[in-house]
Amino acid sequence: MPPTITAFAESPDRGRGLARDMRVRWAFEEVGQPYDVRLVSFAEMKQPAHLALHPFGQIPTYQDGEFALFETGAIVLHIAERGRGLLPEDADARARAIAWMFAALNTIEPSIVEYEQAGQAEADRSWHAARLPIMADRIRARLARLSARLGDSEWLDGAFSAGDLTMVMVLRRAEGMGIIEDHPNLSAYVARSQARPAYRRAFDAQLAVFEAALRDTGK
Amino acid sequence: MPPTITAFAESPDRGRGLARDMRVRWAFEEVGQPYDVRLVSFAEMKQPAHLALHPFGQIPTYQDGEFALFETGAIVLHIAERGRGLLPEDADARARAIAWMFAALNTIEPSIVEYEQAGQAEADRSWHAARLPIMADRIRARLARLSARLGDSEWLDGAFSAGDLTMVMVLRRAEGMGIIEDHPNLSAYVARSQARPAYRRAFDAQLAVFEAALRDTGK
Repeated sequence: MPPTITAFAESPDRGRGLARDMRVRWAFEEVGQPYDVRLVSFAEMKQPAHLALHPFGQIPTYQDGEFALFETGAIVLHIAERGRGLLPEDADARARAIAWMFAALNTIEPSIVEYEQAGQAEADRSWHAARLPIMADRIRARLARLSARLGDSEWLDGAFSAGDLTMVMVLRRAEGMGIIEDHPNLSAYVARSQARPAYRRAFDAQLAVFEAALRDTGK
Repeated sequence: MPPTITAFAESPDRGRGLARDMRVRWAFEEVGQPYDVRLVSFAEMKQPAHLALHPFGQIPTYQDGEFALFETGAIVLHIAERGRGLLPEDADARARAIAWMFAALNTIEPSIVEYEQAGQAEADRSWHAARLPIMADRIRARLARLSARLGDSEWLDGAFSAGDLTMVMVLRRAEGMGIIEDHPNLSAYVARSQARPAYRRAFDAQLAVFEAALRDTGK
């Protein structure tokens, strides 16, 4: 039995591959590990059965027999540690790849999620327009440093790793904010990642879920 | 030669132990690994020499001979993997402990940092007072789930781990917001952690840096 992950039955991103199951699907595809997907509705995610798997009532979760894991970064790291192709063999290089995972999730993503969340929760507030540049500047400051570090390199530290996978998915959440485009090397880095066959397979798989839901509901 | 970390020469938290070097100091103390500290000023943190160590110009960094690492979560994980006492031996339990590290840094901390950052950057804006309850509710929603999961347990998953260490330090950043106090089990969890001898040693070491700076500058 392959491991089973959970994903949104109806993804709010409408198949754009921004939901966090995409990160896990991509990791599975990079290491060549088959997996199953169980779709959950928003209502199910807040029920005790799902909360037992994920204390914060989110997706994705990971189950392999009796073993269960939550938190996307931890799941991607677990897949990377058990498979081949997402973490270097060398211990020092491996630690640096993991550092880029944490950098993506703790240094870059929060500023992007803040901007996104304000667009959902505060768009109708009087202050929203005035806050947009404040939030955008926070993202800009981080991405300027990231761009400087990446420079002309293909990936963040040597070969493609779980650090790049995580960073690219975080950068994709800033799509449409007009910020990544300030840095052609970051745009190219994201595009280079999206051209990977494993990325394509993962993307197509999550898109198929959205298209099937669309057909079912006739929306 | 023990590993060397960097810390603020003049910590903006005035010795309260909220700066991120505290997390790394505590990890070192838990595993019994001696370490050295090199203090850096805010100006030095943005210079090329420091940016080579830390792409985002922050502290802490970790150096062990030629090997360098940045990002607090990655440094704590590295210390935990090389020492004993912060990660279970059992592979499944180990993965779950790491999941709590990611949960602390990617699910809990962003909402707390958002609140903190607004207090610094937007305190004089007309909207700040109206936004405080919006931001506080986001933290409340997360901590209610965390409290429910912790329940009557001493630690998040079995024995004390790097997951608890990271979570407690994240929760401490919400001190003074009047939110943790809604959950006596979370307050007790933080207090229990602060009573650990390793925590005390780490706390005293960072406080000594602040007090020495205070004497030097006569502030």
